[in-house]
Amino acid sequence: MAVTLKDVAALAGVSRSAVSRCFTEGASVSAKTRAKIEKAADQLGYRPNALASSLTTGRTKLIGLVSNNFHNPVFLEVFDRFTRGLQDRGLRPLLVNLTDETDPANSLRMLRQYSVDAVIVASSTLPVSFAERFHAAGVPVVHSFGRHSPGARVTVVGIDNVEAGRIAATELIRRGYRRVAMLAGPKSATSTQDRLKGFLGALEARGDISVTTSYARAYSFEAGWDEMRRLLDEGPPAEAYFCGDDVLSIGALAALKDAGMQVPGDVGIVGLNDMEMARWQNIDLTTIRQPIDAVVETSIELVCAMLEDPDFHPASRLLPCHLVERGTLRPA
Amino acid sequence: MAVTLKDVAALAGVSRSAVSRCFTEGASVSAKTRAKIEKAADQLGYRPNALASSLTTGRTKLIGLVSNNFHNPVFLEVFDRFTRGLQDRGLRPLLVNLTDETDPANSLRMLRQYSVDAVIVASSTLPVSFAERFHAAGVPVVHSFGRHSPGARVTVVGIDNVEAGRIAATELIRRGYRRVAMLAGPKSATSTQDRLKGFLGALEARGDISVTTSYARAYSFEAGWDEMRRLLDEGPPAEAYFCGDDVLSIGALAALKDAGMQVPGDVGIVGLNDMEMARWQNIDLTTIRQPIDAVVETSIELVCAMLEDPDFHPASRLLPCHLVERGTLRPA
Repeated sequence: MAVTLKDVAALAGVSRSAVSRCFTEGASVSAKTRAKIEKAADQLGYRPNALASSLTTGRTKLIGLVSNNFHNPVFLEVFDRFTRGLQDRGLRPLLVNLTDETDPANSLRMLRQYSVDAVIVASSTLPVSFAERFHAAGVPVVHSFGRHSPGARVTVVGIDNVEAGRIAATELIRRGYRRVAMLAGPKSATSTQDRLKGFLGALEARGDISVTTSYARAYSFEAGWDEMRRLLDEGPPAEAYFCGDDVLSIGALAALKDAGMQVPGDVGIVGLNDMEMARWQNIDLTTIRQPIDAVVETSIELVCAMLEDPDFHPASRLLPCHLVERGTLRPA
Repeated sequence: MAVTLKDVAALAGVSRSAVSRCFTEGASVSAKTRAKIEKAADQLGYRPNALASSLTTGRTKLIGLVSNNFHNPVFLEVFDRFTRGLQDRGLRPLLVNLTDETDPANSLRMLRQYSVDAVIVASSTLPVSFAERFHAAGVPVVHSFGRHSPGARVTVVGIDNVEAGRIAATELIRRGYRRVAMLAGPKSATSTQDRLKGFLGALEARGDISVTTSYARAYSFEAGWDEMRRLLDEGPPAEAYFCGDDVLSIGALAALKDAGMQVPGDVGIVGLNDMEMARWQNIDLTTIRQPIDAVVETSIELVCAMLEDPDFHPASRLLPCHLVERGTLRPA
């Protein structure tokens, strides 16, 4: 016979509402009362079942957290902030790893099977159409670190990557570099395309500055190292590189060091993200700061707003980014 | 009116078993048949509900993945391997972040509410008692990277950390270091205690070698940097340090570099884990390799075996570790 909340209340000698509060995330109950209730619940084998109650409430409090880059250390910060932010609101992340897989149909099928309340796509490389598949299927979705396009149907929280590229170019010009380059991320990534567009756009009118472009195969240390190694094999390096992100920058820095080059003496490097490692004293990377904490927090707030009001379709939010001065570009 | 599998089969013009296979993880169905079924399911608004069916099967295929260190880059590899390994078997990780929280009662309550089939505790710092709480509550549990103690009731998959400490000491002796030290992880962590025990044990009989010990406050870059900085402020460093893990080693390396010290010329460093970053060319860390891939894979296999047979209580598995030679210890 199923044990009910009433049985637990009777054994613990507390009210039914106290038992209910005890098993409701965020509800207030004294430590003493909680202890009594948990003891009684354990004795009786009582377990509130979030999944069973989801069948009546229509809410599982599960949020699909979909990502496709587990080789970029910035994502450890992203996962840390998402899991804590969701937990703080009584929500639970169901983590989906798309490392070997980019077909949205499979994730969509799986996440619907678990009746997730919403989906957060955390990726700067997946195309706009990926998150749109969820939206089209009626699943509330936010694309964090994605590309915002006017008229798009999916809510994006991130930065304006075109603007970030412009900031990088402006900084390199201001510091007097005249042979500059972008060592970009993978060609197919929206973030790569947008950062490159801003970078080239800001340099377009400058006939006195030469610009070259190349692509790393992924946002990873190895890809950054390999691409810088290849560039060095081809001939003398540019005076300064805007690298697609911080982990590419760190790979490029290692390749330069290996080749006996001084940074910023021989070559300048500017990254993008300002992940924890960029501040490490042996890396000390000058970089364009993407406000990761604010992107994550805003994404969760928008997801919660969409859950409160299913008709609420929030506008995308593009947060400001700015240069963080450290040791890999020469002074102006 | 609820749409059934039969309705979908009729509209798609396929058998009911084809529809069933289409929505069963790992079951075989041709791409053409799948497309027909998905089109019909979309038209009818049919969704197989994993949670609803879990109420009859008693299986949610959700696995709680509990961790407490999102500041150590090795965990990005750990999460990558766990999520992919679980997904490959049709299981889904519900990620729990214990960064601000070490009371097992809260995770236990939450994970029971979601009726997870099993729990994997991925932590080298949580006490044995943490995972035991899940075991005591009847939840199948594996403690990955945990401490194995004979007679313990919880299945552990990891390395023998005492042995790892011994390997470190033996290497330092073999290379002729005579003033050695351990820059250990947090004092409360089981991995710290065990690695230190092995390290000191192997040096005990060597009256000609001086040994000192100190603790970093966490397994993080900052903690490693701060502790090495403090040691350098106190006086001349040891000839070589066994650091509690790779991220502590990298912090210590940065502090040494900042102080103008050469590695391995002035000071030697040996780490533990062999995480991806240890191989980065600008880190090039000599370290004791913990077979992370095998620990994860074995943990998942044991969890699956426990799910197959609830009476199966597997023995803990301690996997071998060995030194990986790179550039931070002088040659023998």
